[in-house]
Amino acid sequence: MRFTSEQQLDGGVLERGFTLGESGIPGFLWTPASASPAAPAPLILIGPPPLGLHKVYSRLAGRARYYAAEYGFAAATVELPGSGDRPRWAAAEQARADLRRAMEAGGPVGGEIVDALVLPLVERAVPEWRAALDALLTLPGLGGPVGYEGGVISLGIRLAVAEPRVVSACFFAGSLVPARMFEEARRVTIPLQVLLQWDDEGNDRQAALDLFDAFGSTEKTLHASLGGHTGVPRFELDAGARFFARHLKPC
Amino acid sequence: MRFTSEQQLDGGVLERGFTLGESGIPGFLWTPASASPAAPAPLILIGPPPLGLHKVYSRLAGRARYYAAEYGFAAATVELPGSGDRPRWAAAEQARADLRRAMEAGGPVGGEIVDALVLPLVERAVPEWRAALDALLTLPGLGGPVGYEGGVISLGIRLAVAEPRVVSACFFAGSLVPARMFEEARRVTIPLQVLLQWDDEGNDRQAALDLFDAFGSTEKTLHASLGGHTGVPRFELDAGARFFARHLKPC
Repeated sequence: MRFTSEQQLDGGVLERGFTLGESGIPGFLWTPASASPAAPAPLILIGPPPLGLHKVYSRLAGRARYYAAEYGFAAATVELPGSGDRPRWAAAEQARADLRRAMEAGGPVGGEIVDALVLPLVERAVPEWRAALDALLTLPGLGGPVGYEGGVISLGIRLAVAEPRVVSACFFAGSLVPARMFEEARRVTIPLQVLLQWDDEGNDRQAALDLFDAFGSTEKTLHASLGGHTGVPRFELDAGARFFARHLKPC
Repeated sequence: MRFTSEQQLDGGVLERGFTLGESGIPGFLWTPASASPAAPAPLILIGPPPLGLHKVYSRLAGRARYYAAEYGFAAATVELPGSGDRPRWAAAEQARADLRRAMEAGGPVGGEIVDALVLPLVERAVPEWRAALDALLTLPGLGGPVGYEGGVISLGIRLAVAEPRVVSACFFAGSLVPARMFEEARRVTIPLQVLLQWDDEGNDRQAALDLFDAFGSTEKTLHASLGGHTGVPRFELDAGARFFARHLKPC
């Protein structure tokens, strides 16, 4: 991990850009003023929507700044495979085109499109996010327990199952989920808070409720709010932070 | 309104028992230390389950104490018609017996039982709660906007529609709801937070989701948590308080 930029934000929050590994996967780390080797900050991994970090930067940075300034959490995100300036691959491009066509036609999105879109993304991303965790948790001032929040819920599900350092997660049930991830959801046992937009244009409400039902966690709460995909109410940011405050106690 | 008892609780919270009107309907009022004529406290009406205040006192007092000590809200509750030591009426007793029989038989509870149980209760309770509001809001230190929370969701729905001083509500979708209350739910427009226990034994999950869907409010959030009827997670108390903190700004 190599830091490439550094910038002081409001509330004593330090933002650092970094690149990861030989291929230079970009990411951001935000740390609170309070983080120190004696009092390491818990870390929240923010899963970005697969649109490229440059497109979603301000949204993500706003969330991270809130977590850091108001709750003393560190936060980090990593560019997804095939997003931003990272190399595309043909099957994913094909799946994106198929998805666009299906949605423009207003029809349902076939399971094979969802599988082609999401499963390789998760397969590629999970080792990268685990490597990022390895690197991040060696930094001075970091080292607390880890939470995951954000988009590409399938990535979060896989991390929740495969990565024992992730001890709680706040998912957004707002993306297309391959059928086989429902099976994986049953093996998730960490505490969950799940956001659902009740009128999400691109997402089937019943499928999201079924996914919530499938999670194996004994503590899980669904926050369903009126509105469309991009209408998640502002107060859910604080609701998520308080969820993490209950579960990410500094070590 | 006549005060009948007074007791100082932890956190500077004053609890007063009262009786209302000629028939002496009992109730409780909890006020925070901060309440004063210059800074009147917002008021939360706590709807009790229809079991008698003496049975649910400690649960209700615990909630009220939290609201008052942590958020500076006043809180009040009133004994429901036919609960506690208040006079029963034959049709309600019959409906209770029918409900018990239906639930022991494990079968669905017929709509006519639900109607007989809930509709007269709401009809009788609403004028009493409005009279309680009239009396409470003349007290020094009270007079802010009013929220409703708690059980007998049909009472909350009717108050939300009929009583303009109630400006936000946190409902528990955990009781039997007459079909005609779904129509009334469409006329509710105040901000809502709705609790649902995902595995509520006595309550149909789909009916609760349909009720949430029916509410006419543009701000509404469902908090569905794993567990049975009595298993509402402790953290939902704080989530409710924060919801009210957004909507019950002191006048």
